[in-house]
Amino acid sequence: MVEKVLHAIQDDYPDDFAWCYGCGRLNETGHHFRTGWQGDQTVTLYTPKPEHTALPGFVYGGLIASLIDCHGTGSAALALHRKNGFEPGDDQGAPRFVTAYLNVNFHKPTPHGVQLKAVGRVEEIHPKKFKVAAEVFADNILCASGEVIAVVMPSSFLKEG
Amino acid sequence: MVEKVLHAIQDDYPDDFAWCYGCGRLNETGHHFRTGWQGDQTVTLYTPKPEHTALPGFVYGGLIASLIDCHGTGSAALALHRKNGFEPGDDQGAPRFVTAYLNVNFHKPTPHGVQLKAVGRVEEIHPKKFKVAAEVFADNILCASGEVIAVVMPSSFLKEG
Repeated sequence: MVEKVLHAIQDDYPDDFAWCYGCGRLNETGHHFRTGWQGDQTVTLYTPKPEHTALPGFVYGGLIASLIDCHGTGSAALALHRKNGFEPGDDQGAPRFVTAYLNVNFHKPTPHGVQLKAVGRVEEIHPKKFKVAAEVFADNILCASGEVIAVVMPSSFLKEG
Repeated sequence: MVEKVLHAIQDDYPDDFAWCYGCGRLNETGHHFRTGWQGDQTVTLYTPKPEHTALPGFVYGGLIASLIDCHGTGSAALALHRKNGFEPGDDQGAPRFVTAYLNVNFHKPTPHGVQLKAVGRVEEIHPKKFKVAAEVFADNILCASGEVIAVVMPSSFLKEG
């Protein structure tokens, strides 16, 4: 069964912050990862493209790291947006996070050709810093897990005009 | 100045193991990361494509994680190959590793538009397991660092024929 995220936080990133190769809706050739709530957990779904292989039949680890990365920043943005009183789809610009730290444990080879599901639990560790624990499933089998420390995007990411 | 890796371990991966989206020479649309020795350190060079942005002007973190990932497996393969008495270019099939664990610390926004240089130090922690400490520089500025635990590719990665 293929699932779908209806209301994703990335849909509400302001245009200037929607260019990420992983999750930016305005990045034409990117992955377009989309992250939403499922109860009190966060979910990102993605079906790897044919070229995203490690070996034929298995998913490239760098793609899984990318998925966990954007799932982490998206989950943190969901949590802060909710703390501010908003949900994705409320027509309110969402906060934007960047990754300070990422780790990934690869538990077993991830089969290619099925939809991947990243599931996250978010914890606020500072008003501007969130920790996201993520698990990545393929066909309901846990293939990888990881952790992201996401921080509110600092001004050093804004190009001088 | 743009540098180049002359003899890369990925050039010597057997054909069946050269399909990685990050570093497989036979993966047409992949990144084609190539990793070689520079003294007793390992080096992987890569210039991100225009679409590999986090925000305009800065490199996507998932790409940096991917670079560290393949730099890690490539560095481990270089080390085991050397331990076996070979160097890249010796016309000997190189050993192939997979990533068991990966972490990345993002120290500062990585500028887009310049060649990235991942530099690694490899340590054997088991005959089939190597730890690689990696640093990623842009214009000689340290932007990210990380660690990879790479293990000799297990048979579970071989598809049943």
